[in-house]
Amino acid sequence: MSQTPVVSPRPSGRLPDQMRPVRIERAFTRHAEGSVLICFGETRVLCTASVDNKVPAFLRGKGEGWVTAEYGMLPRSTHTRSDREAARGKQGGRTLEIQRLIGRALRACVDRSALGERTITLDCDVLQADGGTRTAAITGAYVALVDAVNWLRQRGEIKREVVVGAVAAVSAGIYRGQPVLDLDYAEDSDCDTDMNIVMNDGGGFIELQGTAEGHAFRRDELDALLALGEKGARELFAAQNEALGR
Amino acid sequence: MSQTPVVSPRPSGRLPDQMRPVRIERAFTRHAEGSVLICFGETRVLCTASVDNKVPAFLRGKGEGWVTAEYGMLPRSTHTRSDREAARGKQGGRTLEIQRLIGRALRACVDRSALGERTITLDCDVLQADGGTRTAAITGAYVALVDAVNWLRQRGEIKREVVVGAVAAVSAGIYRGQPVLDLDYAEDSDCDTDMNIVMNDGGGFIELQGTAEGHAFRRDELDALLALGEKGARELFAAQNEALGR
Amino acid sequence: MSQTPVVSPRPSGRLPDQMRPVRIERAFTRHAEGSVLICFGETRVLCTASVDNKVPAFLRGKGEGWVTAEYGMLPRSTHTRSDREAARGKQGGRTLEIQRLIGRALRACVDRSALGERTITLDCDVLQADGGTRTAAITGAYVALVDAVNWLRQRGEIKREVVVGAVAAVSAGIYRGQPVLDLDYAEDSDCDTDMNIVMNDGGGFIELQGTAEGHAFRRDELDALLALGEKGARELFAAQNEALGR
Amino acid sequence: MSQTPVVSPRPSGRLPDQMRPVRIERAFTRHAEGSVLICFGETRVLCTASVDNKVPAFLRGKGEGWVTAEYGMLPRSTHTRSDREAARGKQGGRTLEIQRLIGRALRACVDRSALGERTITLDCDVLQADGGTRTAAITGAYVALVDAVNWLRQRGEIKREVVVGAVAAVSAGIYRGQPVLDLDYAEDSDCDTDMNIVMNDGGGFIELQGTAEGHAFRRDELDALLALGEKGARELFAAQNEALGR
Amino acid sequence: MSQTPVVSPRPSGRLPDQMRPVRIERAFTRHAEGSVLICFGETRVLCTASVDNKVPAFLRGKGEGWVTAEYGMLPRSTHTRSDREAARGKQGGRTLEIQRLIGRALRACVDRSALGERTITLDCDVLQADGGTRTAAITGAYVALVDAVNWLRQRGEIKREVVVGAVAAVSAGIYRGQPVLDLDYAEDSDCDTDMNIVMNDGGGFIELQGTAEGHAFRRDELDALLALGEKGARELFAAQNEALGR
Amino acid sequence: MSQTPVVSPRPSGRLPDQMRPVRIERAFTRHAEGSVLICFGETRVLCTASVDNKVPAFLRGKGEGWVTAEYGMLPRSTHTRSDREAARGKQGGRTLEIQRLIGRALRACVDRSALGERTITLDCDVLQADGGTRTAAITGAYVALVDAVNWLRQRGEIKREVVVGAVAAVSAGIYRGQPVLDLDYAEDSDCDTDMNIVMNDGGGFIELQGTAEGHAFRRDELDALLALGEKGARELFAAQNEALGR
Repeated sequence: MSQTPVVSPRPSGRLPDQMRPVRIERAFTRHAEGSVLICFGETRVLCTASVDNKVPAFLRGKGEGWVTAEYGMLPRSTHTRSDREAARGKQGGRTLEIQRLIGRALRACVDRSALGERTITLDCDVLQADGGTRTAAITGAYVALVDAVNWLRQRGEIKREVVVGAVAAVSAGIYRGQPVLDLDYAEDSDCDTDMNIVMNDGGGFIELQGTAEGHAFRRDELDALLALGEKGARELFAAQNEALGR
Repeated sequence: MSQTPVVSPRPSGRLPDQMRPVRIERAFTRHAEGSVLICFGETRVLCTASVDNKVPAFLRGKGEGWVTAEYGMLPRSTHTRSDREAARGKQGGRTLEIQRLIGRALRACVDRSALGERTITLDCDVLQADGGTRTAAITGAYVALVDAVNWLRQRGEIKREVVVGAVAAVSAGIYRGQPVLDLDYAEDSDCDTDMNIVMNDGGGFIELQGTAEGHAFRRDELDALLALGEKGARELFAAQNEALGR
Repeated sequence: MSQTPVVSPRPSGRLPDQMRPVRIERAFTRHAEGSVLICFGETRVLCTASVDNKVPAFLRGKGEGWVTAEYGMLPRSTHTRSDREAARGKQGGRTLEIQRLIGRALRACVDRSALGERTITLDCDVLQADGGTRTAAITGAYVALVDAVNWLRQRGEIKREVVVGAVAAVSAGIYRGQPVLDLDYAEDSDCDTDMNIVMNDGGGFIELQGTAEGHAFRRDELDALLALGEKGARELFAAQNEALGR
Repeated sequence: MSQTPVVSPRPSGRLPDQMRPVRIERAFTRHAEGSVLICFGETRVLCTASVDNKVPAFLRGKGEGWVTAEYGMLPRSTHTRSDREAARGKQGGRTLEIQRLIGRALRACVDRSALGERTITLDCDVLQADGGTRTAAITGAYVALVDAVNWLRQRGEIKREVVVGAVAAVSAGIYRGQPVLDLDYAEDSDCDTDMNIVMNDGGGFIELQGTAEGHAFRRDELDALLALGEKGARELFAAQNEALGR
Repeated sequence: MSQTPVVSPRPSGRLPDQMRPVRIERAFTRHAEGSVLICFGETRVLCTASVDNKVPAFLRGKGEGWVTAEYGMLPRSTHTRSDREAARGKQGGRTLEIQRLIGRALRACVDRSALGERTITLDCDVLQADGGTRTAAITGAYVALVDAVNWLRQRGEIKREVVVGAVAAVSAGIYRGQPVLDLDYAEDSDCDTDMNIVMNDGGGFIELQGTAEGHAFRRDELDALLALGEKGARELFAAQNEALGR
Repeated sequence: MSQTPVVSPRPSGRLPDQMRPVRIERAFTRHAEGSVLICFGETRVLCTASVDNKVPAFLRGKGEGWVTAEYGMLPRSTHTRSDREAARGKQGGRTLEIQRLIGRALRACVDRSALGERTITLDCDVLQADGGTRTAAITGAYVALVDAVNWLRQRGEIKREVVVGAVAAVSAGIYRGQPVLDLDYAEDSDCDTDMNIVMNDGGGFIELQGTAEGHAFRRDELDALLALGEKGARELFAAQNEALGR
């Protein structure tokens, strides 16, 4: 993959394989068992993890727990104000799609038997949006999840390891012909292909979602995007570990 | 009014007429024309003001503007997680009641002819709740409103004064027999009477909402609550002015 | 308070402290345990009390009862037809606000332990609106509540006193500079300040809701409104007692 | 048809072909252009007619008017309290079915070209239910419609005859083996067949809806029900004419 | 009844008392306990019967079963595309009315005690509409119901006869002055009177729904329509029996 | 990739890279401008294309057309009956996600300027589900889209080429450790990784959605799935061409 910013400079001046600065702040609010503010540059998402001693009906009596997610954007997290979904009376398709993705991604690192009959709900609320809110949400929700599980362990409510490995997510895309990592809004709204890559820290893929916004993408472009995603994920695992004091 | 903390100490150790520390942070997020994080102690509300060059149908062609508000709580802003209103598919009665109150309060300080055919929407989203979210929201939304109007003025879109005076709100209540100012959650959930007082900086009342949660309140108790409210409002006007650099 | 109708005559010709004729008709319909048509002049509200041997989930097993209210306006109770809320698919903010107020007001005179695990639902449906529907609803719902409790007592289902004292509500406002009692629609739609006052027959305040529609109101205006409210409430308690044959 | 009350007395003691007393009270409320309280015995329905100078989108610009209906039951119009449809967030199938029926029935006597581009909405709200609410609603809505059309004529807004003939509705059914006219609740909830018959005063059928609740009905039973319906409709046309002072 | 096609030929060229070709195909899909595609000419409805070992709350513990129906039209089953009801967020009045009719019709041939505490849901989905979808749905749902009951019997879950007799439905109407059987879309959208007739194979009427679209219909016209309906129903019972191999 | 069915036989007995029989039937219903029944084995989806001479608000006046999709499953298309989304009052997250995917996929082969200000809506309704409904829907919707565009061309409404290339979709997954093509329900509900691959006939990727249901997937597994997807897509393009008589 060519990294020649001279040819096609990114609006932010970043190198093609350069992520935005990542900031992870734990205990951002005080009531939740886990509460993390995560920033990918100007994108800021508040991720809280809430523990409830109940499971959905389809799991009752099976001795297994559940992990689920909800996602929302504050009406003015975006450049122009969006309708409040609570006022419109329903969550849009994009919201449902993202929160389903976050839930699946986090369940991939949880041993639900070890969790026991409890539900952990990950609320990911975007305070400010500048592209990549779903990848920031997954990456931050992981840290909130770990905090919530630690809270349970400190109270003696769980014994075995609940969180197995780590999960992080990042986007990559083809912007003006060049594969780039971690698209911001300026790039996202003007790119040919956008891919969200969810990985675990063993190098495995949890979820891949690639969409050709303009022309279809070729296999070699896909390979370049996957390589960028792997690089980004490694940096995010480091940021998570640092935030968690590991 | 007796101020003898020995007799009935408040859970927080505050004096009966002592407000929680108030913090007002402008430009908290970057997209909105006005964006204010206001904290009344541990209560934190993000208030954004968004300008739209349209008015509701009932005002079209009349040359007047509109100011409206929406209110929401993040699901885990509270001690135990509340349902997300967007997921439930409707806003609850408490939410609607509060956002109607915020809208009326702010319209009381706006010259809608001077605003012209524009709508300013005040989104008040509670990041963390510890009692008094609606009074913090009104007080913070005022600052966001001023910022949005200044943004319009700097672009030359308005000429005359739009914001006339200031508006702030505070609660007072009877806690264990004693009138106290600015109830936090521990007091609010265990008080006899709770009153929300919205004032302007000319000393006039914009809105009074007093509710006897336990026994009915007497006229002398009402007088004591109003005196506390006037004191609190004076302090809030000072905090607003300081935040606005006046 | 000056009572000089010469200076600012009310549209109806009433004196400033004069209520509209109040009429309370019990057993207006036959199925409900309590059924009251209350008229404040041309405002007519049908208040029914329905007994159900269940309580909401949050009260189950606690040995306490519940009192709640619902409010509605027939589509053509108003000057121009309003949308039917059932057809629009949701109750508006004003409706929810009013029915929450009615419920709180009536719970203030009920000993919920004495009621036992039962719910009394007060349905207040406006047949004809001419201002003051919420105050008429509260005043009439009290009578319906008493009838429903008597129905329970006659069947031997309750032993102790359930209704403690009486509750009534009236509005007062500043109309063309003058404090007046019990605003009708012509006054309500053109007044500066509107206050709803809910009292008990011990002279205590249950709820105060005052809103400056035009300019903010001063403390002396507030005092005048409270004095009017106290006078009106006394007359309403007398009307309730007469209707109940006390 | 045998009319031998000795064999199978009706719960009310009526003869098989005897309707309940019908009462029609015009100008029951004051805001609507037509407002009629109609009682079929203990069934009481308030029918208002509201004139609006608009038509639905599918009729715009065609020079024709529209007549439509909405139906509702007050929550405690029934023996046990029913959920308020506005609170549940939707109208039930029975409600929609009835209001569609009322609308069709009344349109059958209206010359929509003569009405011009106006909509008349007939709101039929049941204050007290004892069987036959839909037939009472149709019969009363006709009178409200005539009053609304007269209101338009008195203002000079229409010239030609808008209401052509009269419309009324009545039920008939097989109760304990015997065809009876105008079923009350006690009969309706325990009958084998229930038929609603909408007729015009020329003896024509506008709508027939017959349902076998128990065993299927034979052709001779159907003939008996139709004969009862014709008798009932004649009496209702007389009652309408008397109420209208014709 | 005159059958003179010369006078008023039907758009399809059919004789006045001639039904469209009826086709009934069992086991059209594989998962449902009963699955029938029924065609009345170009009208095609897929009727599935699903068995569930639960009953609605109002029947629990009574030892009786339930039969219910749901109806839908694929968005492009019609000449111009209709909105998808799932996307609009509610079923329209016509849909609710039809599915209530189908449910009542089928319950009329079911011994609910013999069914035991089970629910059979009849889903009637219109793949292609050309008039008469509700009558086709009832006629086809009967066959699907029989198949589902046979499925239960083959598994030994029921002993007694559950389906008592047969049910079928057909429409008749006055088209250009002439009574005709089984209206197709071209006739239905241009007829004076439309009647849906649900019968059992004992010659009894289960449901009659006749509507005057244009002028009111006279008694002799009604008699002609009933005679046509009886003829059509006989043919449909034959088609059902043939499809069921009886 | 090893194709040794001996090692891990698929439930259907298919080879790992063997698709189910694909059947494409055009003109399946008569009203739609394009109407295609597509079967991937036992999965059957009816795809209709409807032309409307309007575009959504965000495109008005821009001279461009729009292509959108809606997806639904008949309640008993599945092994056990699913709730009807129209009756529940909303489309679920899975439905919204799939219909957004179908819409994006088909827009990728459409020149929206050439289409002009028209909307083509692709309704994909699952008559019978056995895994792979979304891939069958995309593949079939393409054929329906081509038919609708040809319908427009035959009427002289469009001149230039609207459909550019072809689009098809297929799934691949890791079933019991082995990469397999075109998962049926038995495999889908028990696989480790499931990937939906949307391609164009130039070999480019339009959309990739891969989800690790069990353990994360490795890069070499991803490569195997992509190879299977490319093989499947080639076969689908051939089937589309054959159906279209190319």
